Amino acid sequence: MKVIWNKEIVDRASVKIDLEDRGYQFGDGLYEVIRAYNGTLFTIDEHIDRMFRGADKIDLKMPFTKEELKQLIISLIKENQIDTGNIYFQLTRGNGSPRNHAYPDPEKVTPVFTASTTVVPRDAVLMSKGVAAITIPDMRWLHCDIKSISLLGNVMAKHEAHKVGAFEAIQHRDGIVTEASSSNSWMIKDDVIYTHPDGNLILAGITKLVILKIAREAGLKVKEEPYTLEQLKQADEVFISSTTLEVMPVVTLDGASVGDGKVGPIVTKLQELYAQEVTRVCGELV
Amino acid sequence: MKVIWNKEIVDRASVKIDLEDRGYQFGDGLYEVIRAYNGTLFTIDEHIDRMFRGADKIDLKMPFTKEELKQLIISLIKENQIDTGNIYFQLTRGNGSPRNHAYPDPEKVTPVFTASTTVVPRDAVLMSKGVAAITIPDMRWLHCDIKSISLLGNVMAKHEAHKVGAFEAIQHRDGIVTEASSSNSWMIKDDVIYTHPDGNLILAGITKLVILKIAREAGLKVKEEPYTLEQLKQADEVFISSTTLEVMPVVTLDGASVGDGKVGPIVTKLQELYAQEVTRVCGELV
Repeated sequence: MKVIWNKEIVDRASVKIDLEDRGYQFGDGLYEVIRAYNGTLFTIDEHIDRMFRGADKIDLKMPFTKEELKQLIISLIKENQIDTGNIYFQLTRGNGSPRNHAYPDPEKVTPVFTASTTVVPRDAVLMSKGVAAITIPDMRWLHCDIKSISLLGNVMAKHEAHKVGAFEAIQHRDGIVTEASSSNSWMIKDDVIYTHPDGNLILAGITKLVILKIAREAGLKVKEEPYTLEQLKQADEVFISSTTLEVMPVVTLDGASVGDGKVGPIVTKLQELYAQEVTRVCGELV
Repeated sequence: MKVIWNKEIVDRASVKIDLEDRGYQFGDGLYEVIRAYNGTLFTIDEHIDRMFRGADKIDLKMPFTKEELKQLIISLIKENQIDTGNIYFQLTRGNGSPRNHAYPDPEKVTPVFTASTTVVPRDAVLMSKGVAAITIPDMRWLHCDIKSISLLGNVMAKHEAHKVGAFEAIQHRDGIVTEASSSNSWMIKDDVIYTHPDGNLILAGITKLVILKIAREAGLKVKEEPYTLEQLKQADEVFISSTTLEVMPVVTLDGASVGDGKVGPIVTKLQELYAQEVTRVCGELV
């Protein structure tokens, strides 16, 4: 298995992260996960754009152009012969020793880039059955638009779900549903699809972007506006979305059935539309 | 220079952090900084206790007892012949590959411990002159009591201060002053010393604990209660505290003088009391 370390494709075992890398001491870095289908990376430009936007927000100077980054990650997908799977990549601010919270002088520090791949088949069974979710107060910071590696808040929320045997934790802040611990959250009521608008309280999901586009193109009613925890619990259908989950139905919330407890018609429709969109870009799905 | 890597004292250059260490991909870990004076670690037990409390909060199983950890970090201070300086140590949840937000099974993952030292003299000049601070909205998460390495929020706040030539950023949430980006925040009004109470909005600083103790023993009036940004700006004296800063006067806030712009009498008194307390434990200060 090969990985990328800075700008080179190398053996995984040869990578040596410094103990004073600011990614390791401060969570000072950004990441992305892109899904490959049939060896083609889906929405690669959107993911790369988001990393560059995040870099602007934290004054992290990208060590390559968008096109260079694109070619770099495509080369790893080819090298590792990934058909259906994920590429994970992150960029940290590098070793700013001696340790100091403040950003080091960018002229004196080299950001550290790493990327690795995993083979991950589509989970058609889970997508057809749906998952259980809990609801939980959103304890995270107020820069959730930045896809940073300072993820302990998300990690703790996910753990709360796993402790009770649920798949995901849907978070709410002051009674407003924001997003789930590692996915965007959606609900459907009276044939209208709702999801929280972008801004500092949620990550502007790339899969969310795709779903908004395909839903609107198909003539479905979509409202990108805040909704309450109470509305979520009264929803007809609920789902979560992410790069790896695609459109994943949520069939129970805090142990209670969502609607009739089965995957509903609009979620099913969105799954079909999403698969069509992936097929259009990456070829027939297996 | 030697460092600790897991339970061994090793050459710094031999340490190899894995790119899939959860500290590197999720900020999933805890840290402490302890100050040595005359080769003796000040408030070592309090710092170790806090790391163990943090580990409980994130369900991270400590790989050693408190006493083992204590002996380990004392051994590095001796090995590196640190007289006046800091020991930084952190513990991450280790490599939980394949990457997943949820905590991996603790039976299958070994936490990773690292520690390093730096020589850092006391900055008597800065302590006598004081520093400039800005005020800034607190954008961090709601588990600030956990001394985690997911620090990007703190890092961004510190950067805002540095951008305008200030030393520290004092944060406020909904108009209430919480703490600074890497220190606790205090104000003095009409001979009463105020600081935010412990809880989920601030870190329970060890230096804060020491200052509360010595101030009360000296008969000074102390109120550990929330105060507003407006009160801060009208304060007679302001200071910040941390392991490395001790009692550090803040003489300007957002460019305006605090009081008459000079280090005030109660801050000076607290500096003397703090130095006496350190001397009592670690011997005469140089």
